Amino acid sequence: MASFTRAAIIGVGLIGGSLGMAMRKRGLAREVVGVARVPETIGVARARGAIDRGTTDPVDGVAGADLVVLATPPELVVSMAQQVLPYLGAGAIVTDVASVKGGIVPEIESALDPARGVAFVGGHPMAGNEGRGVAAASDELFKGSVYLITRTPRTDPAAAERIATLARALGARPIMTDPDAHDRAVARVSHLPYLLAAALIGAAEEETAAAGPSFLGATRVAGSPVPMWAQICRLNRREILDALRAFRGKLDRIEQALADGADLETVLDEARQARRALSPRSENGLPVSRAAGSRSERP
Amino acid sequence: MASFTRAAIIGVGLIGGSLGMAMRKRGLAREVVGVARVPETIGVARARGAIDRGTTDPVDGVAGADLVVLATPPELVVSMAQQVLPYLGAGAIVTDVASVKGGIVPEIESALDPARGVAFVGGHPMAGNEGRGVAAASDELFKGSVYLITRTPRTDPAAAERIATLARALGARPIMTDPDAHDRAVARVSHLPYLLAAALIGAAEEETAAAGPSFLGATRVAGSPVPMWAQICRLNRREILDALRAFRGKLDRIEQALADGADLETVLDEARQARRALSPRSENGLPVSRAAGSRSERP
Repeated sequence: MASFTRAAIIGVGLIGGSLGMAMRKRGLAREVVGVARVPETIGVARARGAIDRGTTDPVDGVAGADLVVLATPPELVVSMAQQVLPYLGAGAIVTDVASVKGGIVPEIESALDPARGVAFVGGHPMAGNEGRGVAAASDELFKGSVYLITRTPRTDPAAAERIATLARALGARPIMTDPDAHDRAVARVSHLPYLLAAALIGAAEEETAAAGPSFLGATRVAGSPVPMWAQICRLNRREILDALRAFRGKLDRIEQALADGADLETVLDEARQARRALSPRSENGLPVSRAAGSRSERP
Repeated sequence: MASFTRAAIIGVGLIGGSLGMAMRKRGLAREVVGVARVPETIGVARARGAIDRGTTDPVDGVAGADLVVLATPPELVVSMAQQVLPYLGAGAIVTDVASVKGGIVPEIESALDPARGVAFVGGHPMAGNEGRGVAAASDELFKGSVYLITRTPRTDPAAAERIATLARALGARPIMTDPDAHDRAVARVSHLPYLLAAALIGAAEEETAAAGPSFLGATRVAGSPVPMWAQICRLNRREILDALRAFRGKLDRIEQALADGADLETVLDEARQARRALSPRSENGLPVSRAAGSRSERP
């Protein structure tokens, strides 16, 4: 049973392309239409099985769609929503995949015309790899990942539930949140770790000959495309700076314990307990991916 | 062809036990003798296939051994070496597995009696998991990992080469270094990342509901046993503090770029280039493990 009749994916890159591949493979939409900035992407996306057909015109692309996924770079999501909203019919659901929600969700909600019966649900599938574009897309990209979904006073609960159902069908674990809580949480579990990986790579200097799988794993995200990360950092700057302050506080305490020799076990044990409370979770019996494995390196 | 006639492993924990399992499985020693602090460990180690026989007496354990592996907690390595060295015969090689070398290698070298023909080679297999003891051991633990081996003016080159051959036979990638360079390198690629993971867990506070496989992977090491890490931190304090200074310098620069908005792309791109220069390497055609995969999360 197809959940949607026609899904339009605007921006057929790594995430948009993977969504298209996963939806087509699982029969979650009868038709997937891709909207690309350049015509070449359409051919690649079709060849990869990400879309049934494509166009470079967003307005053409969303015609007759009951699901529109805004999968453009984060800084373009709001303007793209404003451009296509007037062309959507009653019952259509619009969602996005951006990694920041505070500056995006309220703006798009303001652009909704209540008389038209179009719903918007902010979404953020926390899945990816270090590749770029539809060439790096995979129909299994979302399996075992977290899919954050925003609910605000203006969100249609039924539309939010349909996006959650879609997330589950992709193999992801949907978590409901609101835009501000979202931005605070991802600053700490995603944006801060990216910046730490970038600083760690710099601090390693010439000492990376000894770098094994653990160091490579810990710093892998620092190899991701910079333009997207720079946009995210700018859009979520306030929360990231706050997360950095919290991190520096913890690091100061660890460094002090290391310099003194006192309390070192206590401080490290607090971190160990906190980490161990965090084992992979599951929702609705869906096991969380153990893709990263439990193998690591000793010091 | 067995490389060694009798290997004595002192300390049959995660690393010692895994070494025993791997050597026995690959026929790298005709016999593996385990020395455990408590008798119960001997039974478990035998049941797991880590040793052929065991004893709680180190002097008994090393009798007739041509390879002695000191796999005790780091702070006990030197005293254990001093205890067993007088009982070893000509041609025996002693090695250790500790994560710090500066305080250990020169001390053991000073304890060697040149007339006895016993060689010492510092070793550090950078492999592990978050488990404890022989129960968590695995004969594949070293596959794809880095195996650091120290060479000093007092090291017998033939003995060092035999340890490198052993490392390769375990599926690891041997890298020759010296004790000071070792401690500086592992401070940056291993000890610093551990402390950052501990601080990151603390900084995440209540926001970990959104933590997916990437965050779990980035912080996994913070869940490792504290006593070993506390010993390592104390033994390598000077280099770790130096690595922390370098890290803070890089983080300051990133934070400044984030706060200003200026240079953000430049700073992040430097990190990206450095990370991309670090792809998995191989030595002698041995592929480096991709255990951690290239899958990750988007921000």
